[in-house]
Amino acid sequence: MSERNSEGKSVVGLDEKLRRLKAIFFDVDGVLTDGKIYLGQREDVKAYCTKDGFGILVAGAAGLEVFLVTGRSSASVTRRAGELGVKAFQNVEDKLVCLRTVCAKAGFTLDDVAFVGDDLNDLNAMKEVGVSFAVADAACEITTIADFTTSKNGGEGAAREVIEMILRSQGKWEETVREFLS
Amino acid sequence: MSERNSEGKSVVGLDEKLRRLKAIFFDVDGVLTDGKIYLGQREDVKAYCTKDGFGILVAGAAGLEVFLVTGRSSASVTRRAGELGVKAFQNVEDKLVCLRTVCAKAGFTLDDVAFVGDDLNDLNAMKEVGVSFAVADAACEITTIADFTTSKNGGEGAAREVIEMILRSQGKWEETVREFLS
Amino acid sequence: MSERNSEGKSVVGLDEKLRRLKAIFFDVDGVLTDGKIYLGQREDVKAYCTKDGFGILVAGAAGLEVFLVTGRSSASVTRRAGELGVKAFQNVEDKLVCLRTVCAKAGFTLDDVAFVGDDLNDLNAMKEVGVSFAVADAACEITTIADFTTSKNGGEGAAREVIEMILRSQGKWEETVREFLS
Amino acid sequence: MSERNSEGKSVVGLDEKLRRLKAIFFDVDGVLTDGKIYLGQREDVKAYCTKDGFGILVAGAAGLEVFLVTGRSSASVTRRAGELGVKAFQNVEDKLVCLRTVCAKAGFTLDDVAFVGDDLNDLNAMKEVGVSFAVADAACEITTIADFTTSKNGGEGAAREVIEMILRSQGKWEETVREFLS
Repeated sequence: MSERNSEGKSVVGLDEKLRRLKAIFFDVDGVLTDGKIYLGQREDVKAYCTKDGFGILVAGAAGLEVFLVTGRSSASVTRRAGELGVKAFQNVEDKLVCLRTVCAKAGFTLDDVAFVGDDLNDLNAMKEVGVSFAVADAACEITTIADFTTSKNGGEGAAREVIEMILRSQGKWEETVREFLS
Repeated sequence: MSERNSEGKSVVGLDEKLRRLKAIFFDVDGVLTDGKIYLGQREDVKAYCTKDGFGILVAGAAGLEVFLVTGRSSASVTRRAGELGVKAFQNVEDKLVCLRTVCAKAGFTLDDVAFVGDDLNDLNAMKEVGVSFAVADAACEITTIADFTTSKNGGEGAAREVIEMILRSQGKWEETVREFLS
Repeated sequence: MSERNSEGKSVVGLDEKLRRLKAIFFDVDGVLTDGKIYLGQREDVKAYCTKDGFGILVAGAAGLEVFLVTGRSSASVTRRAGELGVKAFQNVEDKLVCLRTVCAKAGFTLDDVAFVGDDLNDLNAMKEVGVSFAVADAACEITTIADFTTSKNGGEGAAREVIEMILRSQGKWEETVREFLS
Repeated sequence: MSERNSEGKSVVGLDEKLRRLKAIFFDVDGVLTDGKIYLGQREDVKAYCTKDGFGILVAGAAGLEVFLVTGRSSASVTRRAGELGVKAFQNVEDKLVCLRTVCAKAGFTLDDVAFVGDDLNDLNAMKEVGVSFAVADAACEITTIADFTTSKNGGEGAAREVIEMILRSQGKWEETVREFLS
């Protein structure tokens, strides 16, 4: 707490903040997908990126917890979370409240977690977490306040970029990939 | 009526025209989508943009009515309209006739409404409304006559851009977003 | 026949060749679509472009016949052809043979028809027709021999561009659009 | 074996290595597709490229064997392999082990085969084969070690580019295409 300034903003450098992260929360539409929702007669289809998927599996192997948090709800997200072995919170009205609850249960502080978002309903959570990431094609209000904006768009490797950045700062990426693949 | 010149074209400035808008009509294919129709054995699938969806929900919260109007018909559009809580007019042969009917019923004049289009079957409606918008990748006959052409393509945030532009000109965007999210 | 040189190639100018066209044959994958085939458990899905669809309807209204000709077969193409009111030839092994048969039946010569293609299995038909079009992202062997290469990619308006070019050269585009929409 | 240096890397030139190839192994997600997985309620949909499909059929006609090898499993890959008449190995944990088994059975050495990959789980196989190809949008660890990086992205013609390159180096592309189409 003493590391936060009068505006409640942490004053330590980005690299130090990355090193202490224990969990990442990803918004889904526009972050793990390109923001397109494919609607037919019955199904709600979303397109995920395999390189992101590999990154999320490596994050888990490195002990970095991953959560999905979305304001919508669909079988698509349930299936994707199942494939990746992560927990998805759907129909979430207030993402910050969701994060606080998860953190309290897991024994994390908000400084221990990152949030990756792309639009205004991610704003309140992004302002409070340890490190906030905007995807390259996020709304400008989001890139403005984010600690870091990725070079990749949502659904095109942005999540992988975030995970690599965190695990490299923690010195875990290469070793975990090697162990994960063997 | 006195604000229209001899060609029937309104002579007031764009900003003033934006401020008086009470409703927006969106064409669907190529405006709320990238113009692609995914056809399989049975389904007619279209891809919508979540950032547009957020904008349409905010428009509703700000009291700006939103209508979808399309020459085709599909379960996809019915579902998307349902999700967003807006009315969709499908199988519309003459979009201007549709607009006149809706306006008459709602007590609006054509000067009170905007139309966002991308192709020639949007032309007659676009010529008569208060403010006409073309998406960035509209047919050139459409961008030529539009009051404003968006910077974003159809299905990639053009609708959101239009809504933000209107609500900002009316001084309502930031306040409505804040209320909508809390 | 006297207008063909010793290599059997017509020697009249492109504009004159466009004016005499009575029909257009479109390859499907990569021409009316972006060449992607979406495969799930059962369905074969393709993504068509609404602006192309409008162009094909206008072509019909202008008396320019449209045919689809493809080496594959799918319910998707059958449905798209049905929507547009055109005939689709599927599972076609030799596209030139297909064209000759259609032309013989309709009383056209090969000089009366155009072919729009993107890959090597379109080559033999393209070499013999009155006007051959390659889409912008066609294989280089195809753009090399085509009479004209469109500025748009397959599935992104290339078919519309071809139809407008032909009907404008015939002085029919604007009038037919006007009649079609009223 | 005498053509490998102390690091086990073949010392012959790329063109010579291409000429001796008897088989190609393609990763699926990100190589034969753009890496997107479309998930709905039940289906796992992937988008393949028709130009790649044509190339794979020509490879078969030229006597170059094609195999698909993927860490995931889906009906989509089974269908695509069936259409193209090639064998698909799915749920593969270690791609190098898979390659060794296939080669042993077919009487090939690893120098006789190429591997086309895009991500870290392709790395061990790519290091051992005769010629390793990375698609243009592969992870940087993959483009770094590949013998050749394609100009096209995965799912957008990269596989076709690889096949053309190999068959042209073997002097078989034009002749096989001609025979294949007649």
